[in-house]
Amino acid sequence: MDRENHANHGDDEEHEMENEDRKDMESGWAEISEKNMNMRASMREPLLVKGVNRGNATSQIAIVGSNTCPIESLDYEIIENELFKQDWRSRKRTQIFQYIFLKWAFALLIGLLTGLVGVFNTMTVENISGYKLLLNIYLMDEGRYFLAFVSFVGCNLILAVAAGSLCAFIAPAAAGSGIPEVKAYLNGIDAYSILAPSTLFVKIFGSILGVSAGFTMGKEGPMVHTGACIANFLGQGGSRKYHLTWKWLRFFKNDRDRRDLITCGAAAGVAAAFRAPVGGVLFALEEAASWWRSALLWRTFFTTAVVAFVLKAFVQLCSTGNCGLFGEGGLIMYDVSSAGATYGSGDILAAIFLGVIGGLFGSMYNYLIDKVLRVYSMINERGAVYRVLLVICISLLTSVCAFGLSWTVSCVPCPTESSKDCPTQTGNYLSFQCPSGSYNDLATLFLNTNDDAIRNLFSTNTTREFRISTLFIFFGAIYFLGIVTYGIAVPSGLFIPVILAGACYGRLVGRLFEPISDLDTGLYALLGAASFLGGTMRMTVSLCVILLELTNDLLLLPLMMLVLLVSKTVADIFNKGVYDQIVKLKGLPYLEAHAEPYMRQLVALDVVSGPLITFSGIEKVRNILDALKYTGHNGFPVIDEPPFVDSSELFGVVLRSHLLVLLKGKNFSSEQVISGQDILRKYAALDFAKPGSGKGIKLEDLDINEDEMEMYIDLHPITNASPYTVVETMSLAKAAILFRQLGLRHMCVVPKSQGRPPIVGILTRHDLMPEHVLGLYPHLKPHK
Amino acid sequence: MDRENHANHGDDEEHEMENEDRKDMESGWAEISEKNMNMRASMREPLLVKGVNRGNATSQIAIVGSNTCPIESLDYEIIENELFKQDWRSRKRTQIFQYIFLKWAFALLIGLLTGLVGVFNTMTVENISGYKLLLNIYLMDEGRYFLAFVSFVGCNLILAVAAGSLCAFIAPAAAGSGIPEVKAYLNGIDAYSILAPSTLFVKIFGSILGVSAGFTMGKEGPMVHTGACIANFLGQGGSRKYHLTWKWLRFFKNDRDRRDLITCGAAAGVAAAFRAPVGGVLFALEEAASWWRSALLWRTFFTTAVVAFVLKAFVQLCSTGNCGLFGEGGLIMYDVSSAGATYGSGDILAAIFLGVIGGLFGSMYNYLIDKVLRVYSMINERGAVYRVLLVICISLLTSVCAFGLSWTVSCVPCPTESSKDCPTQTGNYLSFQCPSGSYNDLATLFLNTNDDAIRNLFSTNTTREFRISTLFIFFGAIYFLGIVTYGIAVPSGLFIPVILAGACYGRLVGRLFEPISDLDTGLYALLGAASFLGGTMRMTVSLCVILLELTNDLLLLPLMMLVLLVSKTVADIFNKGVYDQIVKLKGLPYLEAHAEPYMRQLVALDVVSGPLITFSGIEKVRNILDALKYTGHNGFPVIDEPPFVDSSELFGVVLRSHLLVLLKGKNFSSEQVISGQDILRKYAALDFAKPGSGKGIKLEDLDINEDEMEMYIDLHPITNASPYTVVETMSLAKAAILFRQLGLRHMCVVPKSQGRPPIVGILTRHDLMPEHVLGLYPHLKPHK
Repeated sequence: MDRENHANHGDDEEHEMENEDRKDMESGWAEISEKNMNMRASMREPLLVKGVNRGNATSQIAIVGSNTCPIESLDYEIIENELFKQDWRSRKRTQIFQYIFLKWAFALLIGLLTGLVGVFNTMTVENISGYKLLLNIYLMDEGRYFLAFVSFVGCNLILAVAAGSLCAFIAPAAAGSGIPEVKAYLNGIDAYSILAPSTLFVKIFGSILGVSAGFTMGKEGPMVHTGACIANFLGQGGSRKYHLTWKWLRFFKNDRDRRDLITCGAAAGVAAAFRAPVGGVLFALEEAASWWRSALLWRTFFTTAVVAFVLKAFVQLCSTGNCGLFGEGGLIMYDVSSAGATYGSGDILAAIFLGVIGGLFGSMYNYLIDKVLRVYSMINERGAVYRVLLVICISLLTSVCAFGLSWTVSCVPCPTESSKDCPTQTGNYLSFQCPSGSYNDLATLFLNTNDDAIRNLFSTNTTREFRISTLFIFFGAIYFLGIVTYGIAVPSGLFIPVILAGACYGRLVGRLFEPISDLDTGLYALLGAASFLGGTMRMTVSLCVILLELTNDLLLLPLMMLVLLVSKTVADIFNKGVYDQIVKLKGLPYLEAHAEPYMRQLVALDVVSGPLITFSGIEKVRNILDALKYTGHNGFPVIDEPPFVDSSELFGVVLRSHLLVLLKGKNFSSEQVISGQDILRKYAALDFAKPGSGKGIKLEDLDINEDEMEMYIDLHPITNASPYTVVETMSLAKAAILFRQLGLRHMCVVPKSQGRPPIVGILTRHDLMPEHVLGLYPHLKPHK
Repeated sequence: MDRENHANHGDDEEHEMENEDRKDMESGWAEISEKNMNMRASMREPLLVKGVNRGNATSQIAIVGSNTCPIESLDYEIIENELFKQDWRSRKRTQIFQYIFLKWAFALLIGLLTGLVGVFNTMTVENISGYKLLLNIYLMDEGRYFLAFVSFVGCNLILAVAAGSLCAFIAPAAAGSGIPEVKAYLNGIDAYSILAPSTLFVKIFGSILGVSAGFTMGKEGPMVHTGACIANFLGQGGSRKYHLTWKWLRFFKNDRDRRDLITCGAAAGVAAAFRAPVGGVLFALEEAASWWRSALLWRTFFTTAVVAFVLKAFVQLCSTGNCGLFGEGGLIMYDVSSAGATYGSGDILAAIFLGVIGGLFGSMYNYLIDKVLRVYSMINERGAVYRVLLVICISLLTSVCAFGLSWTVSCVPCPTESSKDCPTQTGNYLSFQCPSGSYNDLATLFLNTNDDAIRNLFSTNTTREFRISTLFIFFGAIYFLGIVTYGIAVPSGLFIPVILAGACYGRLVGRLFEPISDLDTGLYALLGAASFLGGTMRMTVSLCVILLELTNDLLLLPLMMLVLLVSKTVADIFNKGVYDQIVKLKGLPYLEAHAEPYMRQLVALDVVSGPLITFSGIEKVRNILDALKYTGHNGFPVIDEPPFVDSSELFGVVLRSHLLVLLKGKNFSSEQVISGQDILRKYAALDFAKPGSGKGIKLEDLDINEDEMEMYIDLHPITNASPYTVVETMSLAKAAILFRQLGLRHMCVVPKSQGRPPIVGILTRHDLMPEHVLGLYPHLKPHK
């Protein structure tokens, strides 16, 4: 000290200034450090002034199916803590083989099971609705029209109530198409019920009953959800409850591998629903998945190939007539390849026209569905009984429409060409109430299964089978019924109503363009369906391939592409695709792949919401427990502080679930000392692996006494020491891209300048939601 | 000072210690700061001891086509500097409209041009080789066998020399398939010649001449490259040289938008080559592109739809016979849909067998190609003349094989069914030297265009057309010729030789399985082609769709999927896909989507290579010029230092190209003051936009005198203030994932602890290459 004083004799002034600076710095440090302590003590004091009173505006609750439930984020980051590294280093060839083997075994199983469920669904629906329609035909033939009407309405009602009750009382999450939920899950949003076994059960049986009940709905969307549920069920890693655990399964106890399985499941669902294996892969890629890797493409392809084989075997089996009323048709495969496909400018004009119409009708459809869903969600909120009542209303409406409208139209004389069977009891040229030699064209569409109705509309060389008025009536009814049906408490797909309505106006346009076009009206129906699908769902490649695989006609490809492009372009002017819209309506915090433009005007710090809770590397048990109790946070920064390091620095992020496991183990020490080695010896990475959704240790399971509360625990071994960080001045747009591309759950915001606490906040999915950002900065109007 | 002394009277010792600590810290700072100054002065002193003498081992040079040239990285990060923000804020609706309009206009143009080039290619090839073969047939008919042989060899040689000279003298980069180069470009590797206009020119004409010369090569791979070149040409943003600039084009002067265009181009190339629009999209997705967005899927789909329309129009036009020798066949469309496709367990067994064979042959093919390419690259290095000589050798070999082998086999009597034309002058059942009533089955394959040979092999209901011995000979010859042909200085695709060889052994297997299988041998040929393609190229979904679109038969889908899966699985045991292998062989630093496992044992700091050159926010011109002159770095960290900020902090990263533009403008000031506003007023973001590859200001273009050398320049406005950063202790695996996912060129590594310089290094593509990492840490054997 003296020496220094002496040396600095000549420049006392300067020295003093310097000293003051130093004091300032010191007191600044002390202040921050004090703040830190306070904060950790009270768990409420904000670390940053900026963070005060700035909770997150977006909801942590969303609608799944017709049920409201809390949601969590999934975490695709690899949590590289000491335990993980220890586990990883100890992995041998056999374990890697186990992992790879299981990965493919699961893909095989998912394909197999989804294929079988698809077969079961189709066969059951065909048989139930087949017998229902046969009864109706029998009664009509006998002339007992009123009884036929009552029995038709009654059968539908019973099936509808069964479907609705299943769904409303057992698993409300199974209502609707399920594609929005799967899409949200694959974007990183978790809710227990989305993929729960009960949802799977209701999805399968509810869908069978619902489709058999004659609703204007398909079983295709629910098949996607079913595939995803099956994948999730397999990927749970066994069940500890039923002692079905297997060491091999531990590799799948994380969100990344589950996501891959569920992507395969979704693809398998489409493949099984449409018998379109390539279409399934593309659907998963274009619509469902938010993250994609080339390796996954291959695995998905394998899964759908398995589905294709199951279906092929089934079709070959059923072609011998062993499947009851399920005939030789082979799922929904509308073979139109017989009709030639050379086309000229007239056809191209017609295709563009169809595309425009499809875009307009499609965007209107989305708009109306949105409105109806808002009304329905109010009804659904009131309870299960109201949900069933809604189902009953819609069932009655559908039945009355189908029977009543068919009844009102006059009979059409059979075509003179002898090649056609007319009238028939099933299929084309249905007789209904008509005398011999004539048929009821509207009944041909209404009083058939939806699959058969589509087959009738797609049928070629039957230009005059349906009158223009009939097509108008049917289109109106289906368009309207499709809108009011989606959203009731029954698993209901959107593909079939959209294809039906589209095929209908496709035929109409075909009639309109007859003078300048050589295409068959059946092909027009196909293009119409494509245009309406493009207008509502806004997919391109996957729809194109699905339709090609459905119809087995590749020569129509250029026209189909044109129609899809035009309809998507037109519809995109007005609103978003129907699934995106439903995801938003349900309140699922979906992260878009691109950042919103206004985010460029903000930096990461601007959206950090406080208060920030941090832990020391070796923290008091009480502080941890308080933090877990009083906040809902799932990740906490861990900060190393003197004397363990020179100056406080961010060590990493620790997860709530890992803390709970560690606390449960009670590896406490009475002093603030490093005791990580004990923990590394005592635990394996598997102990911290993510359990199946809805399981895992809860805060209430802990039993810690007062003495233990005052003890310390070393958090280092379970802390992810490589969290992704952004500097506070990083443009928010770039931070959001980083967050989304890497599939993060927590992103640390670190200070730019030195001499401040080593972390200023944590960003989560909710902080990056446009609603939240615009809520904080309302003047940033979307720059369009 | 006195006050403090007084207060601390009782604990002098402690105080002294504290003081010493402080001194240490101070001197540490001084040291670092001094180092910093030194470093900036000398430009050679390393900032970090760790970085000393640790240059990067991986080469900055790679082979493009058959040419060695320096490579650069592309930068997909948005450079968010002040100028960008200013430009972005000033963008209005019209500009956004311009951008969107141009995006789609470019997609349309790329589709149109690629489609037309595809048509031109096919028509020219069909006509040139058609007349060549007609001459041959005429001479053979006349009995002038030797003259026929000489003319055949001569024609081939002339065409081959023309192709080889074009390629060797004008654009060596056009040699080979081009798919590896496009793949590397889309992974972020730039070399001027990859997509240069001269490459485009040679690719088109060289490919036409080469295929006409009868080489065992296809025009499909080159079409992909051609599509990419066309896209790049359009996306250059005009030409300043020819005064073809247009303000609208400025939006495409960046790597991101060009990447998108080139992805569309690659897809259009496949679509045009195979007439497979959906397959084209999938190819771009599965094989070519490293980054993918849903929005891009749609745009690519649009591009390939345009191609499909162009081709469709052309086929309809040519079906009237206006295209010379180009018949009604319609590009390469092998219609096998007539053959039914119900299959049993025998067929599945055969498919698995085919898959295994395909996998074995495929991996061996890749292995041999690799060896041959290594030999060829030594020959090619010697100069253009050697390249042409190599082409001549291979041409002679091919011609002699084709003619000679056909000559040696005996004639086969025509089938008795009257339905077949036999013998014919072209197509199936070629007569060659055979007397009336018999045909030469080997000549049917050898002395046809490759497309016709494939059509013959795929033809159904012709089980006995080719003898088993013939198929063996042809397979051997094609397998061998395919391997030695790839790598000569001619644009040569791999698809066609692989399909030919695969179809050949497919037919053989079909004959083998005849007793237990009902499938037609033509379908076996198709499955064989699929298996060999799967075994060499290792694509799944895209190959499947391409083959389906080629053959117009969807019912074979499940079997095709099976074959592809088996062959890829088997081949993957032995080596990588052929394109991946060639990319590696050429020394292109391809970044894989996943991190190597051993990277988990390292942290980001471990691979940082020094010395690090940093600039001050306001830097002396001389320092900047020296840095640009003495290093090849493309990005430099900019550090704000006192007195402008409290303590030195990382402001961002400035790019070499931007520095050059700024220096050229000479906005210097004699004092170290903030002068950014001037620069913001003087420049627009467009001035800093990336010029077409190979253009842009060079260091030699600058003309700065000694006085100016001592002046200062404010770097803030052009510095990207939001660079992506990782902490030095971040696991290297996670850092690599971040780098790859976001398509970065520079990633800053920042220190974990405080009181150190604000940046410790920059990671680039080369630092993350496995070769480099393993070179530094050889003990980290790949963990398999």
